[in-house]
Amino acid sequence: MALIVQKYGGTSVGDIDCIRRVVHRVVKAKSAGNQVVVVVSAMAGETDRLIRLAQQASASPAAREMDMLLSTGERVTTALLAMALEQEGVRAQSFTGRQVGILTDGAHTNARIEKITAERLREALAAGIVPVVAGFQGINQQSDVTTLGRGGSDLTAVALAAVLLADRCDIYTDVDGVYTADPNMVPSARKLSKIAYEEMLEMASLGAKVLQPRSVQFAMKYQVPVCVRSSFTDDAGTLVTKEDSEMEQEVVSGVTCDKNQTKITLIGVPDQPGIASKIFSAIADASVVIDMIIQNIGQDGLTDLSFTVPKGDAERAKKTLSKLKADLGVEGLRGIGLMDNIAKVSIVGVGMRSHSGTAAKMFTTLAKEGINIIMISTSEIKISCVVDAKYAELAVRALHEAFALGKTPARAGRRNKK
Amino acid sequence: MALIVQKYGGTSVGDIDCIRRVVHRVVKAKSAGNQVVVVVSAMAGETDRLIRLAQQASASPAAREMDMLLSTGERVTTALLAMALEQEGVRAQSFTGRQVGILTDGAHTNARIEKITAERLREALAAGIVPVVAGFQGINQQSDVTTLGRGGSDLTAVALAAVLLADRCDIYTDVDGVYTADPNMVPSARKLSKIAYEEMLEMASLGAKVLQPRSVQFAMKYQVPVCVRSSFTDDAGTLVTKEDSEMEQEVVSGVTCDKNQTKITLIGVPDQPGIASKIFSAIADASVVIDMIIQNIGQDGLTDLSFTVPKGDAERAKKTLSKLKADLGVEGLRGIGLMDNIAKVSIVGVGMRSHSGTAAKMFTTLAKEGINIIMISTSEIKISCVVDAKYAELAVRALHEAFALGKTPARAGRRNKK
Repeated sequence: MALIVQKYGGTSVGDIDCIRRVVHRVVKAKSAGNQVVVVVSAMAGETDRLIRLAQQASASPAAREMDMLLSTGERVTTALLAMALEQEGVRAQSFTGRQVGILTDGAHTNARIEKITAERLREALAAGIVPVVAGFQGINQQSDVTTLGRGGSDLTAVALAAVLLADRCDIYTDVDGVYTADPNMVPSARKLSKIAYEEMLEMASLGAKVLQPRSVQFAMKYQVPVCVRSSFTDDAGTLVTKEDSEMEQEVVSGVTCDKNQTKITLIGVPDQPGIASKIFSAIADASVVIDMIIQNIGQDGLTDLSFTVPKGDAERAKKTLSKLKADLGVEGLRGIGLMDNIAKVSIVGVGMRSHSGTAAKMFTTLAKEGINIIMISTSEIKISCVVDAKYAELAVRALHEAFALGKTPARAGRRNKK
Repeated sequence: MALIVQKYGGTSVGDIDCIRRVVHRVVKAKSAGNQVVVVVSAMAGETDRLIRLAQQASASPAAREMDMLLSTGERVTTALLAMALEQEGVRAQSFTGRQVGILTDGAHTNARIEKITAERLREALAAGIVPVVAGFQGINQQSDVTTLGRGGSDLTAVALAAVLLADRCDIYTDVDGVYTADPNMVPSARKLSKIAYEEMLEMASLGAKVLQPRSVQFAMKYQVPVCVRSSFTDDAGTLVTKEDSEMEQEVVSGVTCDKNQTKITLIGVPDQPGIASKIFSAIADASVVIDMIIQNIGQDGLTDLSFTVPKGDAERAKKTLSKLKADLGVEGLRGIGLMDNIAKVSIVGVGMRSHSGTAAKMFTTLAKEGINIIMISTSEIKISCVVDAKYAELAVRALHEAFALGKTPARAGRRNKK
């Protein structure tokens, strides 16, 4: 008997018909002799509805109240799904984050899980009851409701799977797995049957919106096998798991594209020790997360400094820098430029570690298409290039082709058969 | 400095504009130097929306899950109101039933309050924060969410006022007080400035939907002064309080009408000891609450027995009785008749205790209008007559006129002035 945690996203529980489909899936897993724990998101559209109400109520709603407000969405789904399961003769009970003992820190709207007791989950499972758990939420030390940030239900599911030592965590969503590239951009994109945690983490962080990055980190840390699959088909989906010998065959597993970045350039920064620290400390204090950084070679004791930030944080970062210029006397800073129309195109693969020439192949491919590279950043298993946004799709398609990602790898044929 | 509990019903928080009006009312009470605790219902329409979803999910939703589902409505309102208060510079925090320590028994969908700790309420008040509490809900011993039944937010407000020793509990609703009769039925109906707990209790139970009966009972038990008033005007409303000398002037305070009853008649019941007990025990076991009972004089060892039950329970009661006839051998029972088109018209007043002739006056009034009385029941402070439903409005108007309820009583003139 296996223990499976199933997580259903907003579109998978979007209306009562969808909820019925979930019921059938749970029944099937139960009939196959498995124990099932279900984690649900708010019904599609519900969170946005609540956010609109909050925006009407206040120009800057308190984070504590946003958590109280938004956490109701998942609760509604748990109750409805538990009812629908009971209706089909499956014993089921809804549970809030608090009731299953998800204890978090105090960071409202973006809390971190500190501990999960899961006592009532174990009791329910022992009694043959399917627990239906509200994703996205926990409580802090004051017993106030907290939420885990965008995509937090993925994290709830993976964390519960980890603490219950589940055999698998199935993430049901509106796509049927993880692809070598966004199929909307690359028609020949191929669904991966397996992907390593590290690769998934890079891809998730780089803009593939299939799984929340923190949940992948969590799965990697606790070695939880995660399966991304569609709630509308019976396809096997993509298994996110630890690196194995088959994966090493492939140098590159996927190409991603992130258009949600703005490049900020500081022109004429004094080329002195301590200046970069001053600048980036100020930006960090403003809670802006910086992605890529480039410093050009200085001339006349001045240099240009460029970095990228999420689009939504660009104005805040600029304000912080303008203030810094005035307050801290970063003299000589001649200007602050924002560049919005950029895209970060990346290739990801654990096989890169043992292959040389991957970066060269990427740059050559882009050059052949006449695409100028604005910034470069690399890690052990990915290479990212910032390019003009208008070339984004072209770059992704060219790289997908150059690394032959549309073709099923020689050994993968065996594991792809159903 | 007075402590006031303000409760706002669904129409009073029906949209963001309504919520802003509530904010201004709270600000006004605070500015006048009062401490304020706010209790809110779900936004108008929200509970019905959730009930519809539940009906789609299951033909007979589990009570525990209904509570999980419906309790979200009040939570949404608390968060929105707390945000809107903060926006106006009033420090405020939302609290769930659990967070203010409302502990109930385990009767899901109709739980009774067993204890209220109110610890966090006292802390918030001491810190100058306006607590905004979700009405209608608590938790049971298993820490599962329970709800207090229809109109349960009134009960939350009165119970919190009792435990906090509040100076007053203001119930804001869409009517501006308690009337001598339903103004839709009787154009000359007059708003009462004061009413005794006992009278309000009878009127609430008899179909005046202004206050939930259990909350009136609670207010009476703990002597909480309750004020029923409109959230759309600045009128003084009606004060529900303990009986005082002024009230005794009036023999009758109000006329009510309840069309939600069905009369059940058992024809040919054996006139033997123990039969009535058998019948009414079976009905009680089916959780049907019986209101009025009449037993006719028997002939040939048989008698007819009539009683009224809430309309929605009539079919269940009939089924129970049919089963009883077969199972327990209540032989001779010749038939079970249901009569739907009835209305219970009642007059209520604490002054009745010390006045004779009130019942006679009521019967004479109805007779003059040619209205036949089907059943009669009385208590110390009320007289109810069941009549044909088609005469309901006529009966109410005639009684209102006969007892001169439209005219301001001689002594009441003084207390009515503003």
